[in-house]
Amino acid sequence: MSGADLAKGLACPVPLPADAGGTVLLGHGGGGRMTQQLIERVFLQAFKNPALEPLHDGATLPVLGGRLAFSTDAFVVRPLFFPGGNIGSLAVHGTVNDLAMCGARPLALSASFILEEGFPMADLKRIVTAMKEAAEEAGVSIVTGDTKVVDRGKGDGVFITTSGVGVIPEGVTIAPDRARPGDVVLVNGPIADHGIAILSVREGLEFDTTLESDSAALNGLVEAMLAAGGADVHVLRDPTRGGVASATNEIAVSSKVGIVLRETALPLREQVRGACAILGFDPLYVANEGKCLAFVAKERAAEVLQAMRAHPLGKDAVAIGEVVAANPGRVVMESRIGGRRIVDMLSGEQLPRIC
Amino acid sequence: MSGADLAKGLACPVPLPADAGGTVLLGHGGGGRMTQQLIERVFLQAFKNPALEPLHDGATLPVLGGRLAFSTDAFVVRPLFFPGGNIGSLAVHGTVNDLAMCGARPLALSASFILEEGFPMADLKRIVTAMKEAAEEAGVSIVTGDTKVVDRGKGDGVFITTSGVGVIPEGVTIAPDRARPGDVVLVNGPIADHGIAILSVREGLEFDTTLESDSAALNGLVEAMLAAGGADVHVLRDPTRGGVASATNEIAVSSKVGIVLRETALPLREQVRGACAILGFDPLYVANEGKCLAFVAKERAAEVLQAMRAHPLGKDAVAIGEVVAANPGRVVMESRIGGRRIVDMLSGEQLPRIC
Repeated sequence: MSGADLAKGLACPVPLPADAGGTVLLGHGGGGRMTQQLIERVFLQAFKNPALEPLHDGATLPVLGGRLAFSTDAFVVRPLFFPGGNIGSLAVHGTVNDLAMCGARPLALSASFILEEGFPMADLKRIVTAMKEAAEEAGVSIVTGDTKVVDRGKGDGVFITTSGVGVIPEGVTIAPDRARPGDVVLVNGPIADHGIAILSVREGLEFDTTLESDSAALNGLVEAMLAAGGADVHVLRDPTRGGVASATNEIAVSSKVGIVLRETALPLREQVRGACAILGFDPLYVANEGKCLAFVAKERAAEVLQAMRAHPLGKDAVAIGEVVAANPGRVVMESRIGGRRIVDMLSGEQLPRIC
Repeated sequence: MSGADLAKGLACPVPLPADAGGTVLLGHGGGGRMTQQLIERVFLQAFKNPALEPLHDGATLPVLGGRLAFSTDAFVVRPLFFPGGNIGSLAVHGTVNDLAMCGARPLALSASFILEEGFPMADLKRIVTAMKEAAEEAGVSIVTGDTKVVDRGKGDGVFITTSGVGVIPEGVTIAPDRARPGDVVLVNGPIADHGIAILSVREGLEFDTTLESDSAALNGLVEAMLAAGGADVHVLRDPTRGGVASATNEIAVSSKVGIVLRETALPLREQVRGACAILGFDPLYVANEGKCLAFVAKERAAEVLQAMRAHPLGKDAVAIGEVVAANPGRVVMESRIGGRRIVDMLSGEQLPRIC
């Protein structure tokens, strides 16, 4: 199956509960259209408030004369340990990145653990040690937490929810509705590594070299980008579940703009390209955990790109597309051979429990 | 089994992993000594930092020239729906209360959901609606969230983690190490309702009237208490998992003081007393979700008690004991017949998945 076919397949209607009927499906956790519909029809309807409305990676709160970013993420990844990290490091990186995508400097994290009875204490120690190391590397502290234990067969080893607070510096306004025609879309390196690394463990795929998850804390990189781009950095987003396709779609809708991506510009490791071809995955829909999309005003894009390349986590940064006025709410891919196809959101579940 | 027997039973040594060996047991989630040991030996060892150290219900963060409280709690209660609430209202109350116990005015909550594939959408709606109502009643907004779905048999319907941030007003310093000899111990009403309400559903116990959980948001009550007591309110603690016994033990250890409780003063509904007698539970160890222990300087205790009684959630408030210099780190109960017994922490697991 080619990428285009898969995209078409994903655009097909999926049975979705229009009201409160039905049951929760794996696809509701996929990070694509079904997740969005669950959020809109169940959560947003109930919790409606101005801070929640922008549907960013975190909320911005006016507090004590400044602005605070506040974010949360649950982690249920399978397997718990994978090349390049484990559920613990992922849980720290994920929430640090959500704060960074609000333009905030992460201040503190909380960690809540739901443990299954019988889970090996040694594995818990490894996970907690990875969290400590990831937090230290990102320069944040884990300041509060909670632990619950559920009976055997009612959990799956360990689930972790991390939340985080950060301070948004004055003058920084990053939001998913701030993309403007002319903005250049940047990414800090090859996409789809995390999803394919997880999948390769699950499926027992063998590569010449081990393919590692890109899981990393991006707050340092973002700080360098904001120092270079200032208020001309309009939108930041980490394309996790649902991949670059879903992340860009959400921004196109929020900002009421069109986004054009260039297939030839998309950075992709050869291993990942090969694995995607064999498995019928479109890398645009595959999760990343150490990647950041940035929408930057054209006149500052080169400076921001340079700042990214000067950072270890951005050395392979490139421009992958631009924002246009045409087709608001739509993402279009210019293919290798010059054709154009619509890149839809992920509709169902491509790869359950990827994060 | 009498309460005293149970307390003795609980004081017996329980096999505990001294290092990273062994596996997670249900008792590690009980909120008593095993939970404390897990926290000390696994989490604290890794995450050690000044904000985490006080082991309060939440962390206090200096930020933007003020002080922020930050807290998190995972909820895995069984059954999901119980008299007096459901997992959703409980998740909101729990985190609002953790913030209130830091003396903070709750500002915003996050909610992360781990859903099991196949969970009825209608039940999710009920839960989310209860969260909305509980949040409105407490005057806070749910501003950010996350949803993950795990495969059938790898979860248990729904787990919710809520986190919260709140602002600590100037002049307020509530901390578990601030209890002083002479302080009066107050509680805002009858204890053990939540645990017995949950248990009665699980065991199919019948009462003349339905026994409801006391689950409630205590921030309004705490605000009234602080208005009356100011800096003379030294410690606040909601005695959830592990009950009044574990909460007072933690405070006795943190503050290096003794605590004397008077059995005759402990407020207890007749139904709860009966259920505890039949089931062999000591109400001191049974969870509460709408109760608050306050340690207040003697000279202001009457005023604070009066303020509590003027609030709907404190109309049955009473003094249940006092802080002494003798036996630092110990909680002692003066029994009905004049005897004294040591009240130890909950050692194992009394009632799994109570919150």
